[in-house]
Amino acid sequence: MELIRCTDRVERYGVFELGLSHHCIGNPFKDVVVKCVFRGRHEEIEVTGFYDGDDVFRVRFMPQYLGCYDYTVTISDDNESIHGTFSVVEPSEGNHGPVHVNHQYHFSYADGRPYRPFGTTCYVWELKEEAVRKQTLEELAKGYFNKIRFCIFPKHYIHNLKDPIAFPFEGKPMDASVLTVDNFNEFDGRSAGNDWDFSRFNVAYFQHIDECIATLGRLGIEADLILFHPYDRWGFSLMSHEEDISYLKYVISRFAAFRNVWWSLANEYDLMEKSTSDWEDIAQTIVEEDPYGHLRSIHNCHGLYDHTRPWITHACIQRQDMWKTSEYVDLYRQQFGKPVIMDEMCYEGNIEHGWGNISGEELVRRFWQACLRGGYGGHGETYIDPDDILWWSHGGRLHGSAPERIRFLRQILEEIPGDGLKAYPGAFDDTIAVPEEDIHFGEYYLYYYDRFRTCQREFHFDDEHEYRVELIDTWEMTIKDLGLFKGRFKIDMPCKEYMALRITRSKS
Amino acid sequence: MELIRCTDRVERYGVFELGLSHHCIGNPFKDVVVKCVFRGRHEEIEVTGFYDGDDVFRVRFMPQYLGCYDYTVTISDDNESIHGTFSVVEPSEGNHGPVHVNHQYHFSYADGRPYRPFGTTCYVWELKEEAVRKQTLEELAKGYFNKIRFCIFPKHYIHNLKDPIAFPFEGKPMDASVLTVDNFNEFDGRSAGNDWDFSRFNVAYFQHIDECIATLGRLGIEADLILFHPYDRWGFSLMSHEEDISYLKYVISRFAAFRNVWWSLANEYDLMEKSTSDWEDIAQTIVEEDPYGHLRSIHNCHGLYDHTRPWITHACIQRQDMWKTSEYVDLYRQQFGKPVIMDEMCYEGNIEHGWGNISGEELVRRFWQACLRGGYGGHGETYIDPDDILWWSHGGRLHGSAPERIRFLRQILEEIPGDGLKAYPGAFDDTIAVPEEDIHFGEYYLYYYDRFRTCQREFHFDDEHEYRVELIDTWEMTIKDLGLFKGRFKIDMPCKEYMALRITRSKS
Repeated sequence: MELIRCTDRVERYGVFELGLSHHCIGNPFKDVVVKCVFRGRHEEIEVTGFYDGDDVFRVRFMPQYLGCYDYTVTISDDNESIHGTFSVVEPSEGNHGPVHVNHQYHFSYADGRPYRPFGTTCYVWELKEEAVRKQTLEELAKGYFNKIRFCIFPKHYIHNLKDPIAFPFEGKPMDASVLTVDNFNEFDGRSAGNDWDFSRFNVAYFQHIDECIATLGRLGIEADLILFHPYDRWGFSLMSHEEDISYLKYVISRFAAFRNVWWSLANEYDLMEKSTSDWEDIAQTIVEEDPYGHLRSIHNCHGLYDHTRPWITHACIQRQDMWKTSEYVDLYRQQFGKPVIMDEMCYEGNIEHGWGNISGEELVRRFWQACLRGGYGGHGETYIDPDDILWWSHGGRLHGSAPERIRFLRQILEEIPGDGLKAYPGAFDDTIAVPEEDIHFGEYYLYYYDRFRTCQREFHFDDEHEYRVELIDTWEMTIKDLGLFKGRFKIDMPCKEYMALRITRSKS
Repeated sequence: MELIRCTDRVERYGVFELGLSHHCIGNPFKDVVVKCVFRGRHEEIEVTGFYDGDDVFRVRFMPQYLGCYDYTVTISDDNESIHGTFSVVEPSEGNHGPVHVNHQYHFSYADGRPYRPFGTTCYVWELKEEAVRKQTLEELAKGYFNKIRFCIFPKHYIHNLKDPIAFPFEGKPMDASVLTVDNFNEFDGRSAGNDWDFSRFNVAYFQHIDECIATLGRLGIEADLILFHPYDRWGFSLMSHEEDISYLKYVISRFAAFRNVWWSLANEYDLMEKSTSDWEDIAQTIVEEDPYGHLRSIHNCHGLYDHTRPWITHACIQRQDMWKTSEYVDLYRQQFGKPVIMDEMCYEGNIEHGWGNISGEELVRRFWQACLRGGYGGHGETYIDPDDILWWSHGGRLHGSAPERIRFLRQILEEIPGDGLKAYPGAFDDTIAVPEEDIHFGEYYLYYYDRFRTCQREFHFDDEHEYRVELIDTWEMTIKDLGLFKGRFKIDMPCKEYMALRITRSKS
């Protein structure tokens, strides 16, 4: 074992990486274990290394504190260990550390800055050709979103039947040329013609995903990595439990040091042939193997997982009803006692399925409902495309009307006092949000009128303070200052759908 | 007692009326009972007469069969009785008799013709000045609606603070000039200044309502008479139980012979100071006093009445949720085992309250959901008006976009096989209706895509029959024949909201 690369300084929440040259007899993914203990003044963490091809093993570590660290790396088929030191320096601009749960229902970065998830979904954007990936990253750079859900495994589903740019294992896939729009449903993880060695990872595939995660990180975007999903024709969804765990350990050892990683155990866990015990074991593996406690969730199709399970950091929910979706966020909060992200509440688009053909107006409305009820929404876009490149699956270009309205809402949320919002009771036709923290109560109210077209509302907070009232057109993305009001007052409104009022107590 | 008027022929389901001249000592509304027994070949019915002022009592009777009838009329303070005969002839065009429940969840006229309720609400249209009433009737003549909900008592509520054209009792009302938009809420049935004799009806008031009911009947519109309601400043909502029953008997004796009468026990029963036992007693009185068994319902505000009660002929429901309304119709059908009319599912308009400011699109969408789930919708309109004449309360002119779309839907429902529709299971994003009766199953399917904007749907009913597919744009009110299809087939759709498909099995 020989140290081939090591920097002597790394920024806090950055990736410290060790490269080790070592030739192993047998299968280097399986027959050798690299461990490294990192010691700083405030933490001592053992991480597992991974094989990265060409007789190179790597160890990655994300230091969570400033100052001097030392490390000791060992390899299971070598008695020698290697020691070293490095220093952790202040994070650079834009590096706020990993995101964790804050104030029970919300999130913040490790440095305390609030993080309000506005995610999108591009299931396998990273497995598309470079030109499309470039477009995806250009769209993501526009600041609509700060989280993206995507799969580590390739996806076999409508509008996405071509082979990915690469595969995660050594071996070869079934012949994709036999697939048609009409017969694709006949293929699944048991399809003939696949030939994989699940004990040998295609390191180039994972190196590519490393790079994608890092690029997202530079854009300030959290990578919500979907570890398993059912949309498969290669057999990746039907590996044995031991193979699942081996894959999982490899993924964690590679990716966990990236501060912007989240673990999504599954997209639509309930469509997979795994038992609850399998899922719980997968969860346990993540808890044990990820030394940083990155966020963990599991996404449903038909029915919700029990999001009260202690390993679940936040409820990631696909809507259960075609009419009411994010309107249930406050109930989910009560039910699970955790942050709620409505990571699928139907997509803006016009495809054949109801989950992928709502209007931009409806998707933006659902975002407002999610946020005002103290949760968060999730975006996706499924517009029919001549080249069959649909954002929800491929990335590429955005065509919809929702993203800029979502960014507008995101900007409004950046200005709230405290970490987040929660629902506040009002009239039967009110959707009202106030700051989550009691210390901010009374400072800020956000009223949303949804599809109602009200002409006037009356308010009476108290008789002492002045309140600034701003009229927000959530669709036109305008904010109009209506002035200061005191005591009992009435606000005239423009009898339009999708209006909101932001009411802030004057500090004077 | 002297017979002052009697025709010798009346049409089936028409009103046979006897006028009796009789001077009574005391209060003629209270101290005298007129009874009349009508005998035809197929029915023998006893009805109660009513005092109509100027020493005139009247008896009204709606014969339900053809042929010769005789009658015997008696009066409680006179030993003599009067006898006579008349003949019942074929009903004239447009007279189909009273509406009753048919096939458990639907309605038909007495002559068997299906009746599919498309109602509107103008709470006190009949108590407005003549010019407004004329406008109301002109709008109603346009065929949008075949039912109207309105109150017998005047209404005290926003946008309706002026005195009605008359009052139901002898006496005088409080001074309406003290009312303002801001103080109206301080007045209720206990307000000072009212002085009524609840034992003496203002016959001119009820003669006027007679005429309104008859006029609606000529327009083919059912009069869904609201007997009690809470929006009151005169004390009519707070009469004693005995006074309620006396009023009820008077109303039934006057109006029951009109074939187009329905009894709605209350608008928002749960806002009134009456116990369930009061309501049940009121219901029992109607069941006993109305010899024709006109339709009976009771309308809620916060929570539903127990619509399984045997005296309730159909569930009249105000929506319980601001997002899902008529989407619950199929559940209500299961729950109550009766026809379901969503008689308030928010109104098209732009007033201050959420119940009165949805768009025409949203109201029409709710009608489609109601009908496809085997129930029926209810219309109302609340557009701000310079003269403060809002259809929902006053009648007048319609301004909204929903009525013509409701008429369009009504025309589509006129063409279904059998008496009505019921929900049929499909994909998670389908709203499908089929004929209620099993004998028609397979002949007809109505698919509604609501706010989804689908590009294509696939169908496969069977391999033997041809199916005609028509594309319905429920908003543009167009029906486009897409041709005949067989076996498994795909239908391209225009990726728009509010589309439907009508699929009918070809008879060839």
